[in-house]
Amino acid sequence: MLEEVTVLAPATVANLVCGFDILGLALEEPCDKLTIRKTRRGIRIINLDGYNLPLEPEKNVIGGALLAMLEETREEIGFEIESTKVIKPGSGIGSSAASAAGAVIAANHLLKQPFSTSDLIRFAMCGEQVASGAKHADNIAPAIMGGVTLIRSSFPLDIIGIPAPPLFVTILHPQIEIKTSNAREILKKEILLKDAAIQWGNVAGLVAGLMKGDYELISRSLVDVIVEPIRSILIPGFDLVKTVSLETGALGGGISGSGPSVFMLSHDLVTARKVEAAIIQAYSGLNIDFHTHVSTINNQGVRFI
Amino acid sequence: MLEEVTVLAPATVANLVCGFDILGLALEEPCDKLTIRKTRRGIRIINLDGYNLPLEPEKNVIGGALLAMLEETREEIGFEIESTKVIKPGSGIGSSAASAAGAVIAANHLLKQPFSTSDLIRFAMCGEQVASGAKHADNIAPAIMGGVTLIRSSFPLDIIGIPAPPLFVTILHPQIEIKTSNAREILKKEILLKDAAIQWGNVAGLVAGLMKGDYELISRSLVDVIVEPIRSILIPGFDLVKTVSLETGALGGGISGSGPSVFMLSHDLVTARKVEAAIIQAYSGLNIDFHTHVSTINNQGVRFI
Repeated sequence: MLEEVTVLAPATVANLVCGFDILGLALEEPCDKLTIRKTRRGIRIINLDGYNLPLEPEKNVIGGALLAMLEETREEIGFEIESTKVIKPGSGIGSSAASAAGAVIAANHLLKQPFSTSDLIRFAMCGEQVASGAKHADNIAPAIMGGVTLIRSSFPLDIIGIPAPPLFVTILHPQIEIKTSNAREILKKEILLKDAAIQWGNVAGLVAGLMKGDYELISRSLVDVIVEPIRSILIPGFDLVKTVSLETGALGGGISGSGPSVFMLSHDLVTARKVEAAIIQAYSGLNIDFHTHVSTINNQGVRFI
Repeated sequence: MLEEVTVLAPATVANLVCGFDILGLALEEPCDKLTIRKTRRGIRIINLDGYNLPLEPEKNVIGGALLAMLEETREEIGFEIESTKVIKPGSGIGSSAASAAGAVIAANHLLKQPFSTSDLIRFAMCGEQVASGAKHADNIAPAIMGGVTLIRSSFPLDIIGIPAPPLFVTILHPQIEIKTSNAREILKKEILLKDAAIQWGNVAGLVAGLMKGDYELISRSLVDVIVEPIRSILIPGFDLVKTVSLETGALGGGISGSGPSVFMLSHDLVTARKVEAAIIQAYSGLNIDFHTHVSTINNQGVRFI
């Protein structure tokens, strides 16, 4: 019972502008910390933070992911997990995905790696289901694989790593609550074919820009004509934040996941910091608490410490 | 008046499966042949084929493209063009685009290259407008640039070359007529957001697959859930052709442009020839005349001879 492992599981940005439901990326920070020990049976969760997340495995993201894994394990074992969440739940940068991804990577390590990356993503999606009711991989995929990931298909699951040049991410987290379910309900079920064709032109441009390391092309492609015009009304000051970011040299950006966090991509750290300063100045005019931070892209995903 | 140049202008495949309106590729053959001479003024078109295309420059694709170019030329000159069309008009593999692209590339050469690729595409699109009433670049871009091209944006025009591994194309041309305007009218103006997201997942997968040289990924991404299910009803035997092609080893394929030609991509020449044989066998059961041929991708675009 001495075997244990500790991992850092990263925050992630899903719905990468035009890449609604398909493109995401992993951040270098913030990360959740999880320490997992093998036990004889069952799943025991210990929260070392102040978020009071449910301790019953069936109602907990970590529990949901590990129960899915245990179902496919022949060994008679269990896990004890100490979870220290740093990524605030509900912030829109993949808090639940980090818990699920960290848990399955760590558990797989303790079991001596019987499962493939694809298996681990599948188990972690069961954790996501506990949090949001849906088995989506938007945040799970980049959290586990690192870098920029494409979910080419959800059924069957087909996840592709997209090589990308260095990118720096400025995150604004307005302290408001947006329920993922609400963010989804306000979207129109039907869209114009001509708008869809504009969107997939930009999606293709973004993938090509990332793979070519062509920052100009990345910047021109960071346009969302479908989702952002609707969802951005849920985020006070969104247009202002975007305007000052672009004026300050950001390549582009948008809503992280279903919000409320907003992210902006920059070519270099100096620009990303300037963008952060511009956002702080602009957002201070609103009567809303907020946090900002700057991160590189995490090309590794969950990592052992 | 002795200066003249002869070019071969290639057939092209637009609407590359999931890449409706944005992705196209150039074929090594068939090619139209155009010989262009500088004259003192005006545009004189000489048809050396049996298609009886209009000779008035304003009603002719070549004329439309060259008139657009002459408007931006300071020189007081004209052109005489001998056109030998090999790409049958109305076949759906970019016959009018070849005429327009060949004309502007040849004319630019005679003028000692004053115009950029982007200018030439713009002029050639004026030629396309004569043929179809719309200034689209779907076939023009690959005809001029060669290889696989992405139209990231039409307004403003932003065209990106997509590096691709070797690919072999089997073309079926059923001898039926489909008007581009009809093919466009039957499309639904509105589509489901969830279908659009499936489509842009495949578009992203296709671009990534081409740039990675990952034939498996290319194959999985060659899926069109929006346009093909509707337009394919205009092409007798489409489903049969696709089924036998996939069974024979084709990576995938679909309708070329707005049809009636159908194209299938293969990894190698042997497979592409087997796919052609399978299509011939299948299509012989229908009471429709047809042609088939196999071509590599043309990475050069219009070329001088």
